[in-house]
Amino acid sequence: MKLHVSDVFEAMAADLTLVDRRVSRAAELDFPIVSTMVRDLVKAGGKRLRPLLLLLACRGFDYDLERAVTAAAGVELLHTASLVHDDNIDRAAIRRGTPTLNTQLSAGAVILIGDYLFAQSAILAAATGDTRVVTIFASSLSDICHGQLRETLDAHRLTQQREDYDKRIYGKTAALFAGAAEMGAVIGRAPEDAIQQLRSFGLEVGMAFQIIDDVLDLREGNQVLGKPAGNDLRQGVVTLPTMIFAAGHGPKSEMMTTLEAIVSGEETRDEVIDEAVHAIRLSGALEESEARAAEFTRQAAERLDAVPDPETRAFLFDILNLAVVRSA
Amino acid sequence: MKLHVSDVFEAMAADLTLVDRRVSRAAELDFPIVSTMVRDLVKAGGKRLRPLLLLLACRGFDYDLERAVTAAAGVELLHTASLVHDDNIDRAAIRRGTPTLNTQLSAGAVILIGDYLFAQSAILAAATGDTRVVTIFASSLSDICHGQLRETLDAHRLTQQREDYDKRIYGKTAALFAGAAEMGAVIGRAPEDAIQQLRSFGLEVGMAFQIIDDVLDLREGNQVLGKPAGNDLRQGVVTLPTMIFAAGHGPKSEMMTTLEAIVSGEETRDEVIDEAVHAIRLSGALEESEARAAEFTRQAAERLDAVPDPETRAFLFDILNLAVVRSA
Repeated sequence: MKLHVSDVFEAMAADLTLVDRRVSRAAELDFPIVSTMVRDLVKAGGKRLRPLLLLLACRGFDYDLERAVTAAAGVELLHTASLVHDDNIDRAAIRRGTPTLNTQLSAGAVILIGDYLFAQSAILAAATGDTRVVTIFASSLSDICHGQLRETLDAHRLTQQREDYDKRIYGKTAALFAGAAEMGAVIGRAPEDAIQQLRSFGLEVGMAFQIIDDVLDLREGNQVLGKPAGNDLRQGVVTLPTMIFAAGHGPKSEMMTTLEAIVSGEETRDEVIDEAVHAIRLSGALEESEARAAEFTRQAAERLDAVPDPETRAFLFDILNLAVVRSA
Repeated sequence: MKLHVSDVFEAMAADLTLVDRRVSRAAELDFPIVSTMVRDLVKAGGKRLRPLLLLLACRGFDYDLERAVTAAAGVELLHTASLVHDDNIDRAAIRRGTPTLNTQLSAGAVILIGDYLFAQSAILAAATGDTRVVTIFASSLSDICHGQLRETLDAHRLTQQREDYDKRIYGKTAALFAGAAEMGAVIGRAPEDAIQQLRSFGLEVGMAFQIIDDVLDLREGNQVLGKPAGNDLRQGVVTLPTMIFAAGHGPKSEMMTTLEAIVSGEETRDEVIDEAVHAIRLSGALEESEARAAEFTRQAAERLDAVPDPETRAFLFDILNLAVVRSA
C-alpha cells in the first residue's frame, strides 16, 4: 500500500509542480513583504490532495493538462484562502509549520489577503474557459463558507445532531474534495454519470478525511500545527468522537457536566481537559468514528468503477488510502 | 438635471427590482437570524449605481435582460460582501443607516458571512454562462482587495504620492464601476472598442465618485453613516484634499506636525481634529479636488459617443451627474 502511495506522487510529481508554479504566480502581490509571506504559506503547502484529486479525475478520461492544472491551482488557492480566514478567525499563530499571517499583520490586512487569494482563485477557475467549472468552483466556495459558518454558530454546544456534524464537515472539507473531483471529470469530458460518480468519490473521501482528522485531534493532537490533543474541544468544537462518547453518558452525569463546561469554554484547566480526552480515548469512540470513516471509503472505492483507465483508478485508490491512513 | 436623474431611476425601476430580487434570493442562508440580518443589509441598499451602470451599459447595445440582471445582482452582492468585510476591518457599527453585523455577531462569523456573499456573487457571475464576464468579475474583486489592502498598508502615513491615492481609489471604488460597465457591454455584445470605452467610462465615473466622497467626508461628514466630518483623518486615511492641503505647508510647520500626529493616531482630541478639518476646508483643497473629479467626468462624458442608443446615452450621462452632484 505504502509503495502505491509513493507511486502516485512520483507519477504525478511533474504535473503537481506545474500546479505549484501556477499557484505561486497567482499569489504574487506588489507589496513585497506581504508577497513573501503569502508565497511562504503557499510553498509550505499541504499534501496537495485536492489538486491531485482534480488532476486524477481528469486523467481518468481525456487529460487536458493545461486546463486541469489551471483549475487545480484554483482549488489549491481557494483552500489556502480559506485557511487564511480560518486562522484569522481562530487567531491561530502556526499553520503548516510556519507562523501565520496573524502574527505579522493586522487582522484587517489578513482578511483582505484572504479575499485577494479568493479573487485569484476565481480568476484561475475562469481561465479554464468553462462556466460549468466556474459554477462548481463558486458552489464549493459557498458550501465551504456555509460549513465554516455552521461550525462557528454551532460551537460551544455539546448537544448536537449527527446530521449537524455531517453537514459541517461536508462544508468544511468534503465540499472542496467533491468539487475538485467533479471539476476534473468535467474538464476531462467524462460522461455525465461518471462525473457524478467522481463527485461522490471526492465527497466521500473528504468526509472520511475529516472524520480521521477529528479522531487524530483527540488521539495525538497535531505536531505540525503545534496543537495539543483535544484542541477541538478547547475551541468548543464538538466532533464525532465526542458526540459518540457523550451519547453513552446520562445528561446529568458528572462527565457530561464536565464536558459541557469544557465545550462552553467555562472550564479551561489543562488537567481537566486532558482527563476528558483520555476518557474519550478509552471509551471506544475513536474506533467507532474510524468505522464510520471506513464506511465512507468503502462507498468511495465502489465509485471507481466509473474510471476506465486502470492506472488512474489505482492512483485514485491510493488517494483514498492516503486520506485515512495517516498520522497528524 | 435633477429631472433627468429621476427619469433614469423611473425608466429602470422595473429592471432594478428584478436585480433586487435576485440579490435577496442569493443572500438567503439557512440560519434564520443571520439570514434576516443579511437581508436587511441588502435591502437597505445604496443607490444601486453599480448594477444600474451594468444594466445601462448592456441596454445601450443588445439588451439581454435576463443575463444583465444576473450579472448586476452579482455586482451588487460583491459590493455588499466587500462592505461587510470593510465594516469588520474598521469595526464600524453603522452602515446604510442600520447597525452592522459587527454589533450582533462575532468577528469570525462576520468574515464568513462576507465570504459567503462573495461565493454567491461568483455563482451569479458564473450563471451568465459567459467566462469573459466571470473573468472581469474576478479581476474586479482582485482589484478591490488590492485597493483595500493598499489603504490598510498605506494608512497612518501623511507623506504619500498622488499616484498612491489614485491606485487606492481605483481599487476601492473605480475597479467595480469599470468592471460593471465592461460586463454590461460584453453581455450586450457591444463592439470591442465600445466595450473598452464603456469600461473607461465606468472607471472615470468611479474615480470621480470616490474623490467626491472624500471631499464630502471633510465638508460635512456622513449623516447616513453617522460619521463626523474628518472621519477619514481619524482613521488615518489620507485622501486627496488632505494631500493637496499638506503640499501647501512646509514639512516642519506646526500644521504639518499636527496633521502627522492626527494621521498617525497619536492625536485623537476632537477639537484638534475639527480645527485641522476646518483649515483644510478654508484652504481651497476641497475645490481643487472637485476640479480633479470634474476632469474625470469630462473624460467620461466623451466616452458616451460609443453608445448608439440616444436614450441610454442620456441615462448614462445622468449616472455621471449622480456620481458627483450629491451630498453625503
